[in-house]
Amino acid sequence: MSIAATVLDRIQRVTQLPKVSLHEPTFGGNELKYVTECIETGWVSSVGEYVNRFERELAAYTGAAHAVVVSNGTSGLQVMLELVGVRRDDEVLVPALSFVATANAVRHCGAWPHFVDSDIRSLGMDVSKLDAYLREVGEIRVDGCYNRRTGRRIAAVVPMHTFGHPVDMPALMSLAERHRLEVVEDAAESLGSWIGDRHTGTFGRCAMLSFNGNKIVTTGGGGAIITNDAVLAKRAKHLTTTAKQPHAWAFFHDEVAYNFRMPNLNAAMGCAQLERIGSFLEAKRLLALRYAEAFRDVPEVSLFLERTGTKVNYWLQTLLLAPEVASQRDEILAVTNAAGQMTRPVWELLYTLPMYGACERMTTPVADDLARRIINVPSSPQLIAGVV
Amino acid sequence: MSIAATVLDRIQRVTQLPKVSLHEPTFGGNELKYVTECIETGWVSSVGEYVNRFERELAAYTGAAHAVVVSNGTSGLQVMLELVGVRRDDEVLVPALSFVATANAVRHCGAWPHFVDSDIRSLGMDVSKLDAYLREVGEIRVDGCYNRRTGRRIAAVVPMHTFGHPVDMPALMSLAERHRLEVVEDAAESLGSWIGDRHTGTFGRCAMLSFNGNKIVTTGGGGAIITNDAVLAKRAKHLTTTAKQPHAWAFFHDEVAYNFRMPNLNAAMGCAQLERIGSFLEAKRLLALRYAEAFRDVPEVSLFLERTGTKVNYWLQTLLLAPEVASQRDEILAVTNAAGQMTRPVWELLYTLPMYGACERMTTPVADDLARRIINVPSSPQLIAGVV
Ligand SMILES: Cc1ncc(COP(=O)(O)O)c(C=O)c1O
Ligand SMILES: Cc1ncc(COP(=O)(O)O)c(C=O)c1O
Repeated sequence: MSIAATVLDRIQRVTQLPKVSLHEPTFGGNELKYVTECIETGWVSSVGEYVNRFERELAAYTGAAHAVVVSNGTSGLQVMLELVGVRRDDEVLVPALSFVATANAVRHCGAWPHFVDSDIRSLGMDVSKLDAYLREVGEIRVDGCYNRRTGRRIAAVVPMHTFGHPVDMPALMSLAERHRLEVVEDAAESLGSWIGDRHTGTFGRCAMLSFNGNKIVTTGGGGAIITNDAVLAKRAKHLTTTAKQPHAWAFFHDEVAYNFRMPNLNAAMGCAQLERIGSFLEAKRLLALRYAEAFRDVPEVSLFLERTGTKVNYWLQTLLLAPEVASQRDEILAVTNAAGQMTRPVWELLYTLPMYGACERMTTPVADDLARRIINVPSSPQLIAGVV
Repeated sequence: MSIAATVLDRIQRVTQLPKVSLHEPTFGGNELKYVTECIETGWVSSVGEYVNRFERELAAYTGAAHAVVVSNGTSGLQVMLELVGVRRDDEVLVPALSFVATANAVRHCGAWPHFVDSDIRSLGMDVSKLDAYLREVGEIRVDGCYNRRTGRRIAAVVPMHTFGHPVDMPALMSLAERHRLEVVEDAAESLGSWIGDRHTGTFGRCAMLSFNGNKIVTTGGGGAIITNDAVLAKRAKHLTTTAKQPHAWAFFHDEVAYNFRMPNLNAAMGCAQLERIGSFLEAKRLLALRYAEAFRDVPEVSLFLERTGTKVNYWLQTLLLAPEVASQRDEILAVTNAAGQMTRPVWELLYTLPMYGACERMTTPVADDLARRIINVPSSPQLIAGVV
């Protein structure tokens, strides 16, 4: 059997369905009930009890002191970068291997992404390589770390927890302290992922979650900022809600701000989804075990599993092809998709996209390699019958 | 009776309710049905049939060739300004009398608002005053109109149709041609308002609609770009949906772009709301007549009515105080709000806000005057029993 045929066969053994998408939401809980309540009471818009409740419950679940819901993860990341002091023409360290939104949010602040290589153990930033790189490229001045080559300030670093697998945050935090960088976590994919007993997104100054339709918990579209910093949380709320000062009737807005609100209708759905995250996580963990088992006798393909000390949400199940079959990736993708088992490569590396081709970066051999070898396979929790 | 007591009495005669908000949505049509369908089929997120349908139906309703739904009006305005070529440090002409979002969207492009006085006949931009002003301040160069004072390019003008009352768009369009300005309409408040047989928002190069919770048609939060320009529409869709090139599986994004999508869940609500716009408009028109009648014997207060040649949506009913009682505006606001009849002044003039205090502007005596004399009164269509 060709490797493509083998991969298809193993995926089919796990999914046991003729046609499967990569990730689909499931709404078997209180979603309809809460949304109906919004419609019946008329509270569908930007102010409402579900907005407050979703924020409270996100904070409680992640252990962050504060959560501020927003219209989506990209906008949340943009606002956080502004709030931690990223300015026009600063640079921000982001993984070369990420969804394009991580870099776009940097550009939306007028700053420039600066790309970092990956760690094959986490799929996220390689912290020790970054440390060595910054010793060489960076120079500490009174207002932070500067890139010697470009003369620009390197204001922040944005670790991203790929498919739920956490970056080594304790190491990254001490790196950030050494090099005077603000840390803003892109936790879009890692709701339900932990390092020890700390939730991803609670290590840096603040973090963004995404509730896009393909995420572990969805609000249709939406996101949240989580943080332990009360001042930052308050500023984030203000800046994402047109900076209006409270008044019985007057419209006094005190700074240039955004309409990045999450409507109550969407927050209602989020509350219902969050109630069910335990069963989603359980199903995804079981699914990971089934894929791992199904590929046990295929030496060229392995399931990427959580590393010791972390607890991963297994948001997207991730196959890693052995280097010798990497050249067959596109055939595998073609065969599996043609057969109704939806699979996907990882993102194009960000520095290969036309708008980011001229940005600063270190050498990225690991990201380059991973980009050729990752395949995501069907990951919906409802593939595990009976759990969700 | 004091003027405040009289105003309260007249509002109560119209609303006939002990407690009334300024504007509340009503969801007695297919809202719940369509939203339920999204939840039951799982199509809640950024791609879905209601997104396409809402776009088609908005285009059909307004007569624009294309509509692109977005996460809200502010973001839609920002994207349109970018698309018509507004660049960092350009200036954009906006009314001094508008909601803060009109100016914020300009700043989000890195450009500067430049404030224009109001026409007391429309509550919108005074086109002939602007014409005279540009003759004095503007200078036509090869790439457009420049502000002689600042040396900056004046790239565009954003007429806003206040509370649904249309700006004199034919006059504005010929002004724009004379002075080489792009025209982007802020039609956030004017869905259902027409000049002759043309819908507001179809005169300029493109326009934004808002479906915020307080608007005539709501999606919880949301907006749309409408335009007759097929290229602009295509670019707007691309730029608001991460600029991903179509491919079976690969993630290739070809420019810095946004996640400004409207989720299908919200579009579903929009479709149901738009089905009912006829009855909303009918109710609001009746309500305007009732207010006009109720204040007929109060010479100090008049209802602002549509002018000949226009058909207004009467989104927010607008009282205009006579100059001699303008000083009692705050008392009227206090008395009516305390009595449960929600009323509101118009926005603080944008040049009085701290972040816009240093921006360019012409003298704005009419806007200054209007800002002291406008009071919005309860405007929900369901105040007219039996129509909605
Ligand atoms: C790594 C990463 N960053 C950012 C985002 C952007 O989040 P959103 O789609 O909610 O804007 C996503 C998800 O789409 C993501 O996966
Ligand atoms: C005149 C005007 N411009 C812009 C906006 C912004 O629209 P949105 O609230 O959908 O961002 C609004 C409505 O809130 C508005 O009334």
